[in-house]
Amino acid sequence: MKKIEGGVCAPEGFKANGVHCGIRKNKTKRDLALIVSDVRCSAACVYTQNLVKGAPITVTKRHVADGYAQAIVCNSGNANTCNANGEEIAEGMCGLVSDKTGIPAEDVVVASTGVIGQPLSLEPIAAGMDELVKGLGDNSLFAAQGIMTTDTVDKQIAYTFTLGGKECKIGAIGKGVGMINPNMATMLIFITTDVSISPAMLQKALSADVKDSFNMVSVDGDTSTNDMVCVLANGLAGNDCIEENGKDYLIFRKALNKVTTNLCRRIAKDGEGATKLLECKVSGAKSKSAAKLIAKSIIKSSLFKAAMFGADANWGRVLCAIGYAGADADITKIDVDFKSKAGTLAVCRGGSGIPFSEEEAKKILSCDEIEILINMNDRGGRATAWGCDLTYDYVKINGDYRT
Amino acid sequence: MKKIEGGVCAPEGFKANGVHCGIRKNKTKRDLALIVSDVRCSAACVYTQNLVKGAPITVTKRHVADGYAQAIVCNSGNANTCNANGEEIAEGMCGLVSDKTGIPAEDVVVASTGVIGQPLSLEPIAAGMDELVKGLGDNSLFAAQGIMTTDTVDKQIAYTFTLGGKECKIGAIGKGVGMINPNMATMLIFITTDVSISPAMLQKALSADVKDSFNMVSVDGDTSTNDMVCVLANGLAGNDCIEENGKDYLIFRKALNKVTTNLCRRIAKDGEGATKLLECKVSGAKSKSAAKLIAKSIIKSSLFKAAMFGADANWGRVLCAIGYAGADADITKIDVDFKSKAGTLAVCRGGSGIPFSEEEAKKILSCDEIEILINMNDRGGRATAWGCDLTYDYVKINGDYRT
Repeated sequence: MKKIEGGVCAPEGFKANGVHCGIRKNKTKRDLALIVSDVRCSAACVYTQNLVKGAPITVTKRHVADGYAQAIVCNSGNANTCNANGEEIAEGMCGLVSDKTGIPAEDVVVASTGVIGQPLSLEPIAAGMDELVKGLGDNSLFAAQGIMTTDTVDKQIAYTFTLGGKECKIGAIGKGVGMINPNMATMLIFITTDVSISPAMLQKALSADVKDSFNMVSVDGDTSTNDMVCVLANGLAGNDCIEENGKDYLIFRKALNKVTTNLCRRIAKDGEGATKLLECKVSGAKSKSAAKLIAKSIIKSSLFKAAMFGADANWGRVLCAIGYAGADADITKIDVDFKSKAGTLAVCRGGSGIPFSEEEAKKILSCDEIEILINMNDRGGRATAWGCDLTYDYVKINGDYRT
Repeated sequence: MKKIEGGVCAPEGFKANGVHCGIRKNKTKRDLALIVSDVRCSAACVYTQNLVKGAPITVTKRHVADGYAQAIVCNSGNANTCNANGEEIAEGMCGLVSDKTGIPAEDVVVASTGVIGQPLSLEPIAAGMDELVKGLGDNSLFAAQGIMTTDTVDKQIAYTFTLGGKECKIGAIGKGVGMINPNMATMLIFITTDVSISPAMLQKALSADVKDSFNMVSVDGDTSTNDMVCVLANGLAGNDCIEENGKDYLIFRKALNKVTTNLCRRIAKDGEGATKLLECKVSGAKSKSAAKLIAKSIIKSSLFKAAMFGADANWGRVLCAIGYAGADADITKIDVDFKSKAGTLAVCRGGSGIPFSEEEAKKILSCDEIEILINMNDRGGRATAWGCDLTYDYVKINGDYRT
């Protein structure tokens, strides 16, 4: 498996673009993105489990109910959520794509991200659609920029791999830095691949993957109303279609996981206001589900996140978060280490503190990627969760996001 | 029911004191508190549900197992948690109280609050015990100060009420501004009363009360390892002993609830770094438990808390938090209003936004006590939760608390 350039345009037969159409006030920010495939694709999606769902999610569910889609349109700057005419607008967006591309509206996946509860007008979208479609090409970067909100960096990734002797590619763009605590799905992630795979197997692969990838990311514990991960697979790589479990399916799962894990780390690291990526690796837990509860609880603790911002080796907050995680655990066996490129520091053994150098701790915790290693020393449960530190800038960004 | 002065010393037969013994470095901060009753009391406690429990909790459970206690000793500056010799130290604290007061060590409730995982020495406590006991008197304030950590104000309250013709009193001190998301109990709250009530009925009253009081407070979503609420009732008011349900029990429940609700509001308002008290009142929910989930979810949302800091009427974040609360809810019926002493503002009707004046919103949300009124317009479920805004200072305080 090799990392390559090109994001969602890396796989055969995919084009993309992103433009500024006027939903966002800042004219230097793209706010409308489009991804299209030359041919119809197997499509799989996972969505937020928030009861309050963005209208685009309702529309997308309808459009991919048959397992197929050919395009993804997404705006930033407005979530199109809690609006009385939300579904009409979301359908309208698909209709506009259809008008200019010839792709049936019911083969368009639609997504929106931004402020909740502000009416979204079709006008700027209609006005920008021509430029958006005309510029379709190897422009994954523009699409990645078009879905950004408070993201500070665009997020693209692509890999190449071999399936039954055929070269295959998988690429993705993603956004999301706040209101991030995915449950079932997360933020907006659009993945493209030229692999040939049935809709059912594609959905199976995605649903299995998100449990260990996006569902293990938390920036602030808020599960968004608009989370969505969508994969389009157009089959142009020419491999034998994956229609059941087996070696090819496992290779595809592995490729998909390379893409999703890469985005998890980058989304956490670019968390609103974040200065540090926190990667919590739990091993030796009573079960996998216990390990997941523990890893997620640590990564979500405001107190621990603030301590990491201050490079303070306050491991007591780690123990505290393990204690309220809701997982069956023997707290007298817990070992905790902090690790970064500056070294590894043991701070807790058997649930009690051990002496350590504060100077060494400061050095290790001042790096921008910190691993929190938890060994429960019990059974074989393992899990990884990704998060970020809690900073002044998180408060600043969210204290005045809407206005 | 009338508010009176005196805190935990207001009820007949209770004395208190607080001193600086040297656990905290800052010599102007008291760090050791003692409350004693002239006679043995019915005692009831509720504790944190965190699996990682402070050693004082284990010791206190043992000491009140028979339903009686006569004194409460508490230090700040060190949580005595995750220390190999923690129980020995906590028993040692009770022994020191016993030596100087003659009260049996097994009738002493012990509590600690502060940093987790740092060894606690008995030396400063032993050195300060003489001064602590000698100064016992009408010093509820000193005791309230002795249990403070990052609290900015001391928290005392007392009420008088009549039971079967006898004047009764109930008083309390409390602390807790961070690591606050009680589950079953909370922070440290010590309540005294001269009511005559059996240990069983006292425990029943306390356990019922905390479900709607302290368990509905959240500062940061972190459930502490050392949360404890303890009530001592010494019977000196001379009322007929409350030994079963009935009018007297209900009067006592009401008095207890006046004290606990008062402390809930003050603890939330003094939340670490907080500039505002947030009081979320949910009505019309499908059930009481649904109302509680919804109220607590809103009060815990980092995004909503940051918006309140910025006086930003971002009600979409309220809807979002309702959506992931885990409560059965019809999201198309939700009404949301923001209220403060500057007025009331309707922002959402039937789950969709309605136009409102941003200027008016700014005015209302700039007050230091904000009510978030949620009407689910469904059935009769009601609940109130208390929290605070998320500010730069929360990050500052917790980014460098330990060192």
